[in-house]
Amino acid sequence: MIIPKTLQKAIDELSKLPSIGRKSAQRLALHILRADLNEVRNLSDVLIDLKENTQTCKVCFNISESNTCEICKSEKRDKTTICVVEEISDVIAIEKTNEFSGLYHVLGGVLSPLSGKDADSLNLSELIYRVRNGEIVEVILALNPDTEGETTSLYIAKLLKPFNVKVSRLARGLPIGGDLEFADEATIGRAVLSRIEI
Amino acid sequence: MIIPKTLQKAIDELSKLPSIGRKSAQRLALHILRADLNEVRNLSDVLIDLKENTQTCKVCFNISESNTCEICKSEKRDKTTICVVEEISDVIAIEKTNEFSGLYHVLGGVLSPLSGKDADSLNLSELIYRVRNGEIVEVILALNPDTEGETTSLYIAKLLKPFNVKVSRLARGLPIGGDLEFADEATIGRAVLSRIEI
Repeated sequence: MIIPKTLQKAIDELSKLPSIGRKSAQRLALHILRADLNEVRNLSDVLIDLKENTQTCKVCFNISESNTCEICKSEKRDKTTICVVEEISDVIAIEKTNEFSGLYHVLGGVLSPLSGKDADSLNLSELIYRVRNGEIVEVILALNPDTEGETTSLYIAKLLKPFNVKVSRLARGLPIGGDLEFADEATIGRAVLSRIEI
Repeated sequence: MIIPKTLQKAIDELSKLPSIGRKSAQRLALHILRADLNEVRNLSDVLIDLKENTQTCKVCFNISESNTCEICKSEKRDKTTICVVEEISDVIAIEKTNEFSGLYHVLGGVLSPLSGKDADSLNLSELIYRVRNGEIVEVILALNPDTEGETTSLYIAKLLKPFNVKVSRLARGLPIGGDLEFADEATIGRAVLSRIEI
């Protein structure tokens, strides 16, 4: 099969990206082939820029363009609440809701003995430091509602026991706009148990 | 919502790519954020390289690293057969089968009045030129088995009538490894009509 080396290399590199298989990589490479050179330069530049001009916030481990992120620096944020999340993408997801105005703490994972993630590999000591030395009133544990997320939440709740802070986690229940009929049993069960008076 | 500008720009550029939505673009951007700088440089370089160091073969319009592609230049290819395809990706797909050793001709599209693709926007005069001036014995029309592909095939077959060449198209029938039960009626119908004696 005669595929030019430059095309093959582009396909190889693109297929290293997450959820991009060989077929998608080929489609992307052929798209780039047809695209305007300036467009491709631009794409290439923003990716390098993203890598070179961002860093991890030294306070909360969120993505940042300086050593402290915009959220940690902002005067408008409520400095008494920390929302603990697994990944940077979770910060973005919660920010999109516009329902939270406190600070974040990105753990960088959850406890997962199977994939070798233990407490030391998470940004936990930094969380404890913030709770000990800040004016924190509440820590919201916003981890995924799965076994690893729950285990990690319980672990952190225990770690925070000695400090005078309220520890909460996100509500479980029916997703908004969802249909009771199509919700799974575990979700409905939790929604019944956590019912609230109206 | 506070997303750093560099991240937002990367998401914007990535979501311009085909079949990459906002969510996938965000996932890719966050992957790049975590990836090694050298890896990202490498990706960025191969994309620019793909764009800058490839061109369209002046004979068959396939992708090429020089002005004539490796297939057109090869001494091993059968110069009497041309396989007409819509896109460069079709050349790759047919090359992968190892069943064809002739030359190609990339049309750059099919006739499609709805999307404004007429005969002048396809590389048809160049095909006629090759058939007129070469040692061509057979032209295989390997266009998609849909309405536009069929129409374009009929159109090209008519164009080639005045020349002394055999014109064929790919067989239609049941996909290999497929299950009769799950094939659509049109495919089964065609397979019955085109049955061959064994």
